[in-house]
Amino acid sequence: MDGVKRVVEKRTPISVSEAVKKVIKIRLGQETELVHLHGAYRRTLAEDLIAKHSVPPFDRSPYDGFAIRSEDSSEASRDHPKTFRVIETIGAGSVCSQHVQPGEAVRIMTGAMLPIECDAIVMLELADAFSKDEIDYMTIKRAFPSGHNISYKGEDVGEGTVLIQKGTVINPGTSALLATFGYEYVKVAKKPTIGVYATGSELLDLGDSLEPGKIRNSNTHMLLAQIERAGAIPRYLGSLPDEFDRCYTKIKETAEQVDMLITTGGVSVGDFDLLPEVYAKLEADVLFNKIAMRPGSVTTVAVWQDTLLFGLSGNPSACYVGFEVFVRPVIGMSLFQEKPHLKKVKATLIESFPKANPFTRFVPSHVTYSNDRIQVSPSGFNKSSAVSSLAKTEAFMMLPGGTRGYESGDVVDVLLLETAEGSEWPWD
Amino acid sequence: MDGVKRVVEKRTPISVSEAVKKVIKIRLGQETELVHLHGAYRRTLAEDLIAKHSVPPFDRSPYDGFAIRSEDSSEASRDHPKTFRVIETIGAGSVCSQHVQPGEAVRIMTGAMLPIECDAIVMLELADAFSKDEIDYMTIKRAFPSGHNISYKGEDVGEGTVLIQKGTVINPGTSALLATFGYEYVKVAKKPTIGVYATGSELLDLGDSLEPGKIRNSNTHMLLAQIERAGAIPRYLGSLPDEFDRCYTKIKETAEQVDMLITTGGVSVGDFDLLPEVYAKLEADVLFNKIAMRPGSVTTVAVWQDTLLFGLSGNPSACYVGFEVFVRPVIGMSLFQEKPHLKKVKATLIESFPKANPFTRFVPSHVTYSNDRIQVSPSGFNKSSAVSSLAKTEAFMMLPGGTRGYESGDVVDVLLLETAEGSEWPWD
Repeated sequence: MDGVKRVVEKRTPISVSEAVKKVIKIRLGQETELVHLHGAYRRTLAEDLIAKHSVPPFDRSPYDGFAIRSEDSSEASRDHPKTFRVIETIGAGSVCSQHVQPGEAVRIMTGAMLPIECDAIVMLELADAFSKDEIDYMTIKRAFPSGHNISYKGEDVGEGTVLIQKGTVINPGTSALLATFGYEYVKVAKKPTIGVYATGSELLDLGDSLEPGKIRNSNTHMLLAQIERAGAIPRYLGSLPDEFDRCYTKIKETAEQVDMLITTGGVSVGDFDLLPEVYAKLEADVLFNKIAMRPGSVTTVAVWQDTLLFGLSGNPSACYVGFEVFVRPVIGMSLFQEKPHLKKVKATLIESFPKANPFTRFVPSHVTYSNDRIQVSPSGFNKSSAVSSLAKTEAFMMLPGGTRGYESGDVVDVLLLETAEGSEWPWD
Repeated sequence: MDGVKRVVEKRTPISVSEAVKKVIKIRLGQETELVHLHGAYRRTLAEDLIAKHSVPPFDRSPYDGFAIRSEDSSEASRDHPKTFRVIETIGAGSVCSQHVQPGEAVRIMTGAMLPIECDAIVMLELADAFSKDEIDYMTIKRAFPSGHNISYKGEDVGEGTVLIQKGTVINPGTSALLATFGYEYVKVAKKPTIGVYATGSELLDLGDSLEPGKIRNSNTHMLLAQIERAGAIPRYLGSLPDEFDRCYTKIKETAEQVDMLITTGGVSVGDFDLLPEVYAKLEADVLFNKIAMRPGSVTTVAVWQDTLLFGLSGNPSACYVGFEVFVRPVIGMSLFQEKPHLKKVKATLIESFPKANPFTRFVPSHVTYSNDRIQVSPSGFNKSSAVSSLAKTEAFMMLPGGTRGYESGDVVDVLLLETAEGSEWPWD
């Protein structure tokens, strides 16, 4: 225990929402970069997506048919059919090469541009086409009004319309829109880089064999995936032993190179919990170190030279929750997202949860559906499955403090982990 | 129209479920590869995840406290406190270096291995620690039974337990489990490669300026993102003009290099729809070319030399739906997924949808939540927003054929696009 001082302190817990508000008040930089559209899926738009031209970009035919001057059809009827001379065929992408004269028609394909003199489209099925002396004709038996079957320029979207707002995550439909308007390179939010250190002398690396008294570091690998899911770049830093000088030096060194730094473990008040001392020596501004929540009550967040230092618990569930509740919204905000918090919905509990909740409790949960109702059950309620429960977790129940237990059938708050769109603050 | 033959045929529509069944009957290869755990997020496990050792891997302390031999505490009481000599402090990762004798205790940290002679843990708060003549002691005022506060080896998971099944998509919790058991490299399903050609002489590439009569290819870029979301590798191939020989040669050449080939457009029965002729000349086995669904009724799937050829519609919504309904499950199956189809749930319609549905209809939709109910509304019902509706689409309503319209308040089937877990067949 050389170099380890016991930190004797009485910590005062604050509420979850107070804690989250303190964290998101620290505004990190919002940087942008240009990426090719083919690398833009799941990135966040850093500028509004604007219709750079009208859609459709010209008057066009929505069907295969014949383009005519409507006035030429005005007298056509079953008894007095009207025959047109078909002077040209235009496919999509082609433009009529001639001026259409009275009594003439143009065979036109779906999506092709309407000849300038024409103002109606006759669907293929309503015309009788024939050839005579190598000239093409078609006959109709009714009149067609001006504008019939025409998709007019700009009828879907006018030039300059804001179609998708800055801060939206790019999905396949967004990609289609970006392509439509020629966004070959897209201005997106630059992903922040987040370093992850595990602390604890008991931790082995991935490739190491087990040794008596030691376990493999699993929290770091979980966090790397959580960081990726949240849209940031994880930086793997390995683990630090319970040695103060080593921890202090490494944390200081790395904090200068990343946008945020996460450590797991060592934030409690035990003999080997070094993080409080590290923050003290760094003279970091500790926003809080005790939250009225379970798990994760010792989650600590500090600011040092514009870098956020997240001290998450070494307990896997607490670490998972701590990331999603406190780190994820900061990432989302630096990505310009308007709704950076986990999506909150309600669901019917389908299993009793008899534990009393003196503090806000986050319970790893599994979501199912029954008719149009969302149902939820704890994913790791049986101790035997504790280790694999997080892999089966799609949501957290958020049970308010000061409640007894919950019965099957009760409606509870649920935070979803995998939705494209999150929630705005506040959850409460 | 050189080289273009009009394909005159009467197509017989089959039902959506018949069509999907025909496609998934074609078994593509299921290949595996090893990837480092840090690159494994969102990949699919190609082998069961097995507990390679017990969890915990040894008897350990869940708290900071003192390890004792319980029998030594049997006579302790408020009136007759029992004092132990504290012979050593062990942190997590360390092992007690001495044999613990009667009347001795060991200061032990959370997660540390229990000394072999000890069988109970006294929490820190229940002991009075003090030093005298440079020797450490602690006193307790009650008895502690054998097993008190001990996490026993294997109590969470026994060695050899299958924790996660092959075919599961790796999420952050799975990453933690893989790390726990030392899976430095993970056997995952190899992603199939899917080529995408757009067809149509009207199509401009991303970087091109608009020209009269032409529009930019947007379907391809949408499909690249859909392919990525479904877990496969998209290959961008650009667009093909409406020229038969060029189309035929390119499609044949590319089909030999990819696992699946998607084309968009050209599958209908118009003069410029070349795909039916391409399939005929390839002597590909056309599984179907007409489905009783809207949009996407002309979606065609053919098999040529073990390569699936998907002929999707050129209409953006039809193209989107065609991919999700027919291509996605094939990708999922080649990734060993047990539930490769879009997740089907029910939702309450919150907007009337008065259109009659002679055929199964897929409506791009937006999902919202009210209390514990899922609600759905069309995302592009107003024509003016047609072009951006797919970007706001999180789901498709699936309305059965032979129904009139639907009223607000009706409960309808909904296919979710963004869930981690899909549905097993059948949807119907």
